[in-house]
Amino acid sequence: MINPCVPDIIVSRLPIYLRTLELLSAEGIRTTSSQLLAEKLGISAAQIRKDLSQFGEFGKQGTGYSVNHLIEQLRSILHLTHPWELILIGAGDLGSALARYQGFSNRGFKVAAAYDSDKEKVGKKIGKIEIRSTDQLEADIKKHGYKIAMLSIPASEAQHVTDQLVAAGIKAILSYAPVNLRTPEDVRVSYLDPLSQLQHLTYYLDSK
Amino acid sequence: MINPCVPDIIVSRLPIYLRTLELLSAEGIRTTSSQLLAEKLGISAAQIRKDLSQFGEFGKQGTGYSVNHLIEQLRSILHLTHPWELILIGAGDLGSALARYQGFSNRGFKVAAAYDSDKEKVGKKIGKIEIRSTDQLEADIKKHGYKIAMLSIPASEAQHVTDQLVAAGIKAILSYAPVNLRTPEDVRVSYLDPLSQLQHLTYYLDSK
Repeated sequence: MINPCVPDIIVSRLPIYLRTLELLSAEGIRTTSSQLLAEKLGISAAQIRKDLSQFGEFGKQGTGYSVNHLIEQLRSILHLTHPWELILIGAGDLGSALARYQGFSNRGFKVAAAYDSDKEKVGKKIGKIEIRSTDQLEADIKKHGYKIAMLSIPASEAQHVTDQLVAAGIKAILSYAPVNLRTPEDVRVSYLDPLSQLQHLTYYLDSK
Repeated sequence: MINPCVPDIIVSRLPIYLRTLELLSAEGIRTTSSQLLAEKLGISAAQIRKDLSQFGEFGKQGTGYSVNHLIEQLRSILHLTHPWELILIGAGDLGSALARYQGFSNRGFKVAAAYDSDKEKVGKKIGKIEIRSTDQLEADIKKHGYKIAMLSIPASEAQHVTDQLVAAGIKAILSYAPVNLRTPEDVRVSYLDPLSQLQHLTYYLDSK
């Protein structure tokens, strides 16, 4: 099912399609169309059809898409047919909010453990998730085969921790630390920096 | 300074350049080059030069960029010469973590107030920030002229709250709610959905 030539920008839209289809399914809607998805998403119907056609033929002319079939296909394309375990590095305010967040399991992920370098926090729990020492990171990653880590640590520590994670076998990092990380080519990093997004928005606001 | 023809993808990179330059400045570095920024960011030097050239001539052949001058120019282009007040809707775990986050003020923003519909929370404080009732939203936005709101509320409430915010005068929304929002053309929305980003990453992982 994987097509190595699909542009990353198209791949980035698949989770948005999936999310929208899952909302439709939860509302009991069985079939949909590229036009209806387009209205919900503010992406053109032609673009949606073109994106999906990269991976196969999912709709029928005139009858549209079966919502549940398309959900299954997208979950398969995105490798979401089994739940992924991920680890969380940094158990401060943001890390704790993430650990408590209920939305992971609905969408294919489970926070397996949280890690912090603060000895005061180690051994405590956030909900059902144990806070472990960052000293145990390498051994745990190798033992459990974790592939995905989320970073909610300060920018100043992020590269050092990333180097440790990569050496132990992590292949995908979602980072809240506001700094660009250097990783080998086979390790992907995705960034969440609300301040950069806010600064992008203010570009379009009157400077007042 | 605003050029309405600059593609949004270029604008989206300016905050990343600014963030990187501010880190360099904090390290005491006075001059830099597109090559050095390229190494830090994993974006080509040619792309960086092309992006910046949309807004003027900032570097000198052979001597590179003055870090502080380029910071000033980027802050001006992004309308960050004065601090922006923003409001936070939703004072749950994530909203509280955001309200406590110290990184806003360094980068041009101040959380002016938080809002929640839960009467138990109204009147309490998160750090120095007061939690106010969502009933007061409209009056407060009009009184203070707030233009920016961050949403940390469930997906099911997000469109309704967005409609209220837009009617009261909000022009930019950063949403953590995992749902696409409909707004008029002059209201920009930016999304932060960690689950969509994780699903984008798993596309590239072996399905195991």
